[in-house]
Amino acid sequence: MATMQDIADKMGISKSTVSKALNGASDISEALQKQVLETAVEMGYTKTRRQKSTGKKVCVFIENMEYKEPHQFGYEILLGFRQMAEPAGYQVDIIPADTKLQKDARYDAFMLRQGYAGAFVVGFSLQDPWMEDFQTSRTPTVLYDNYIKANPSTAYVGADNYEGMEMAVAYLKELGHRRIGYLSTALGSYIMQVRHKAFFQALRQNSLHAESTCAATSFYLGQLLEKHLPRLLDMGMTAILCSHDQIASAALLQCGQLGRRIPEDLSIIGFDDLPFCAYTSPPLTTIRQDRIQIGKSGFYALDSLMNQVSIGTLLLHSSLIKRSSTGPAPGGDSARKNR
Amino acid sequence: MATMQDIADKMGISKSTVSKALNGASDISEALQKQVLETAVEMGYTKTRRQKSTGKKVCVFIENMEYKEPHQFGYEILLGFRQMAEPAGYQVDIIPADTKLQKDARYDAFMLRQGYAGAFVVGFSLQDPWMEDFQTSRTPTVLYDNYIKANPSTAYVGADNYEGMEMAVAYLKELGHRRIGYLSTALGSYIMQVRHKAFFQALRQNSLHAESTCAATSFYLGQLLEKHLPRLLDMGMTAILCSHDQIASAALLQCGQLGRRIPEDLSIIGFDDLPFCAYTSPPLTTIRQDRIQIGKSGFYALDSLMNQVSIGTLLLHSSLIKRSSTGPAPGGDSARKNR
Repeated sequence: MATMQDIADKMGISKSTVSKALNGASDISEALQKQVLETAVEMGYTKTRRQKSTGKKVCVFIENMEYKEPHQFGYEILLGFRQMAEPAGYQVDIIPADTKLQKDARYDAFMLRQGYAGAFVVGFSLQDPWMEDFQTSRTPTVLYDNYIKANPSTAYVGADNYEGMEMAVAYLKELGHRRIGYLSTALGSYIMQVRHKAFFQALRQNSLHAESTCAATSFYLGQLLEKHLPRLLDMGMTAILCSHDQIASAALLQCGQLGRRIPEDLSIIGFDDLPFCAYTSPPLTTIRQDRIQIGKSGFYALDSLMNQVSIGTLLLHSSLIKRSSTGPAPGGDSARKNR
Repeated sequence: MATMQDIADKMGISKSTVSKALNGASDISEALQKQVLETAVEMGYTKTRRQKSTGKKVCVFIENMEYKEPHQFGYEILLGFRQMAEPAGYQVDIIPADTKLQKDARYDAFMLRQGYAGAFVVGFSLQDPWMEDFQTSRTPTVLYDNYIKANPSTAYVGADNYEGMEMAVAYLKELGHRRIGYLSTALGSYIMQVRHKAFFQALRQNSLHAESTCAATSFYLGQLLEKHLPRLLDMGMTAILCSHDQIASAALLQCGQLGRRIPEDLSIIGFDDLPFCAYTSPPLTTIRQDRIQIGKSGFYALDSLMNQVSIGTLLLHSSLIKRSSTGPAPGGDSARKNR
């Protein structure tokens, strides 16, 4: 990895000028600062190399996710991260990373200029500009629910969606269900693609009917409820898995309007276990991601990257929270016979 | 989780008797000690609950793997683990875990009796007796290259074999290879099954011919060399991936005897990057597992389980070490055209 001396040699300037430029000293012109910064990034120089045990700084970039109130999805993720990072002596800055911020500076340059040793990236979609930077970035970076292949400076942290789906499908099978459908939001994020694959893999592992028409995806909740849900019911599905609790909870309401009783006529399972799941009517069975643990693991992974232990993937165990939106398949006799 | 008081209540004895029994006090009969231990295990009582910051003990169970000399596969794994565990205040015991030891006691009971807060399990095959115990055990346990589904007390640590295979196949494709074969030891361990799947997935991801005859597996090295290697060559393979460096290195020799030049006629890639790979003739291109990092990650994962952060899977980035056993596919013109 490059040192300040390497940068100085390459640019034909003194090491102290490089140091001043990287630290934003006022006696170095803005143009030279920019040039030093770009050379530093190009040569793979990162803040970690010159880090002392005091004044260590990391940040959390967050997008497409609410996090300020305790009932919001991101709140506990950030809390868990800080519960690990702050006692370890890190200052943690939370930075909303809108498209403008990402377009204003390349990722490594931003991190170097701001003096961050590493980042935890939460809520990014595949379209976010920095997702391409992460392919080759050198700053230790942990992404929640996003996987960057073959870059030793990045790690993917999340719940094990395959395990979660498999638990949910196995549980439905145990209850006698044989025809299971899936409602998902659009597959524009890495994790939605994973859940979609995991659903079909779980069907196959449980020797259940798994043709592509079993699943429906749409960006619009209205379409899922008004077009796809009735279609799945017409196909004879006795259980529906959903990619998010919000979809599952809306499906509960919609089924009421369609005159289907939950769980007598239809079982519904959500994903994430948001706080409201305990209070839907009936309370929602769901696949749990422990968000405090996700935040903590985010720091575990970041700490390991910052210590040159090149973690690529860190998945937490999922768990299935059984509530009242699931029950025996209608016509349960055949179910019992099959067990 | 159960406390000593819970155990005492269940057995109708005093808490101090439970404590003495669990600590092997000489004034408690062996029969009662055994009974208390069994009840404790059944109730999910584990050592972590009563751990002080001093005298913390973890262990490494190792089997089917040499580890005493620096050039042996297990050496650096144990070293990496101890490099993290010992500064964190843990005593680390290395325990060869033969079948007898595993049959003598259930896993949780062994751990409780010996006072270990957790274990790192290295080299176990699917046939090892404790593999079944791990399905339901309560002691924090990290397994190298073995995955236990849906037990929040266990985690799987290893290199990302999918990423490694994909890098190797993509590299061969870049060199113009279109017909790639695979030689593997028998699929009696979890990780051999993963590598086998990863090989086919990598072929498909690179849009290469991927029928089942492209791969050969055998428990016997002789069979791989004398039967399967010639068969793959007859099929027109211009590159061979191997599940282990030892197989790759033997294949290098065998190809010499068959009059095939490496890499002019055939490219060969190993797996693991054992120290000897730099010294084969020609030096072996291989997929690297950094064993020091595996050991360190083993402790990262164990530490997180011991802190109730339920890591399930932790995979390290693989890397491809390019040496001289790989080169452009013979008849490279077509290769260049296809790029």
